[in-house]
Order: sequence, then C-alpha cells, then structure tokens
Amino acid sequence: MVDAEVKRRPGGRSARVRAAVLDATFALLSTRGLEGLRVAEVAERAEVHETSIYRRWGSRENLLLDALIEVSEQLLVPDTGRVRDDLIAYARDLAAFLATPLGHALEHALAAAGDDPDARRARERYWVSRYERSRQMVTRAIERGELPDTVDPRLVIEMLVSPVHFRVVMTREPIEPEMPARIVDALLAGVVGSSGTPT
Amino acid sequence: MVDAEVKRRPGGRSARVRAAVLDATFALLSTRGLEGLRVAEVAERAEVHETSIYRRWGSRENLLLDALIEVSEQLLVPDTGRVRDDLIAYARDLAAFLATPLGHALEHALAAAGDDPDARRARERYWVSRYERSRQMVTRAIERGELPDTVDPRLVIEMLVSPVHFRVVMTREPIEPEMPARIVDALLAGVVGSSGTPT
Repeated sequence: MVDAEVKRRPGGRSARVRAAVLDATFALLSTRGLEGLRVAEVAERAEVHETSIYRRWGSRENLLLDALIEVSEQLLVPDTGRVRDDLIAYARDLAAFLATPLGHALEHALAAAGDDPDARRARERYWVSRYERSRQMVTRAIERGELPDTVDPRLVIEMLVSPVHFRVVMTREPIEPEMPARIVDALLAGVVGSSGTPT
Repeated sequence: MVDAEVKRRPGGRSARVRAAVLDATFALLSTRGLEGLRVAEVAERAEVHETSIYRRWGSRENLLLDALIEVSEQLLVPDTGRVRDDLIAYARDLAAFLATPLGHALEHALAAAGDDPDARRARERYWVSRYERSRQMVTRAIERGELPDTVDPRLVIEMLVSPVHFRVVMTREPIEPEMPARIVDALLAGVVGSSGTPT
C-alpha cells in the first residue's frame, strides 16, 4: 500500500522542504495528472520558492523522477513466509494503488512519457527500484526452499505485474478480486499442472 | 505477422475505396503516429474525397476503429499442433509487430487514448477481436487433450501477451529473443514445477 503523504523524516529544513515539495507534487499529480504538473504550482502549494525547486531538482522531469522513486519506496513488499500469499498480496496492493487517482496518474504518465534522456532515465530508475524491492519475494522463497534456485525472480515479477498494468493501461478492464490469485496459481503451478486449481 | 498493406479484395468500387483509405491510414499512422492522423490527409493520400470518408466512417475515431480491427484480422494465429509452439510463435509475432512503426503507433495510440465513448468502443471491439482469435490456440489445445478443460483460455492469452505489451509501453525494455519461450514455459509448467527448464 502506498501512503500518498510523504512521511516526515528528521533532518532539518532541507528534509522538510523535500517532503513538502513531494507532497505538493503528489497532490497535483492526483488531481490534474502529469499534464497539469507545473513547477510554479508545486512551489506555491509547498510554500517554497520556485527557484528552490530548480536549485534542488534541476528540472520538472527530475522532480517527477524523485516522486516516482519515493512512491516506489513506499510500496511495501509483503513477507508472509509463503510465496503464494506474498505474490497475491503484492498484485492486489498494486491493483489497488493503480485504482487511486495518484496511482492512475503516475501509471499513465509512465505510459505516455517520451523517450528523451530525462524521461528514459526516470523510467529506468523507477523500474530498477521497483524490481529491486519486489524480487525479494522470490529470492526469499528460494532461500526457504519454496522455489527452486533456477527460478528467475525478474521473470516471476514481470509475469505477476504485467497483466495488472496491461488491464489498467491497454484494455482498461476492471481487475476482478480473484484475478491476482489466478495469476499467481498459473505462474507457480502452470496451467498444465494446476488445472486452474489453487496450489 | 501483419501485412501493413491491406489485401485487395474483390467487391467493386466500395471495397477498393475502403482498402485505399485503410492503406492511407496505416501509412500515416506508421509515419506520424496517432497525433498526425488527419482525415484530410488520409483522403488526399487515398485519392478519395474527404466527404466520402466521413460518409462511410462517420468520424476519425471510427476510421481508427476500423483500422485496428483490420490489423487484428491480419494477425495470424499459429496452428502447429503443439500449444507450446503456437504460443511462442504468437508472442514472437506480436513482439515483432510492436517493433514496426505501425505496430508501435497503434500500441501507443491504444495506451494513450482517452475514455470517451468512441475511444472506449474502439478499444473494446479491438480487444474482443484479438481475444476471439488468439484464444483459439488454447481451445484447440484443450480439444487435443494437451491442456485440461479447466484452463481459462482468456487468462492464458492475457498472461502470454501482457509481458510483451508491458515492455513496449511501460518499461520500454527490449524483448530478448528467448523471452517468449521463457514466458510460455513458466505459464505452461509453472515456475515451481519447471524449474525454469523447457517443458
């Protein structure tokens, strides 16, 4: 689950400014989407000077990058002790986040963003950050002996999350409550072996 | 595989006009993307009157709908007699099509399109058409006894194609040549059972 409010961390004025600016960024993304994100309005809402934002982040794109990474770090990775439960909970949380205004805005911003160097760098850092965290569900399962060590964590995560993103971005179909479990069961046991029943 | 040139069908002037207009639509989508698709330019390129296009299709959105459905009908569904080979070939063809300028333009048009009634209808008809054709690979495998009849063809197709679309639209990573086979093996045998080796 993602908390749209950035947690206030100790660290003095600099940390407070960052938190206020990111909060304002999230709020504007939630209400207006990426197109409506203007640095001047972020500054006004965060009660800081626009020049402070440019001094710290350099560009609107870098601010968006920082916001995306921040969101990524707030997405909790479940650790229930069972890989099936972890993966189902993760896919459910992802679907729930993408259904929020902020999640919807970030998702469509990522899908619509161009391929200029800033956008590319933001996108790469975002997905690296996401995969680094989510792959832990699979590596822990391998360490527990629940999954063979030949399993590729990246492939498992990609096959888990891509049907969720596919529905939100491409087909725009609702994600049924049972869909995460059906994906995970097909992924873990295979459609030949499982016959569609839970493992 | 998709042939970007619409096949000329018998049927007189009406069919020739439709083919010429769709050809022009594909050509403009390939070179300019969705944003650059103007009915006046389609008409000029197809050597028909702009009013003929509006009389037949009603709107630019309906023309795009017809173009999307036409592309869908040209995507061949493999029928090798083995579900693994069919699914791998289908995912490879999809990845190859999305790497063409036309495929890239249509994919990003679908991802970026709004949710107004015309766009929604176009999108729905497109995906219904795609699923109706692609699910045949799974239903034939069930009829052959290769897959249990409890398998949901729609889930299999969705889990097969979504990682391909995910890379093209969201992460923008290249699709490695071996990726389709890895997806299909994980999907058929499961990551627990297969240990990542081919079935």
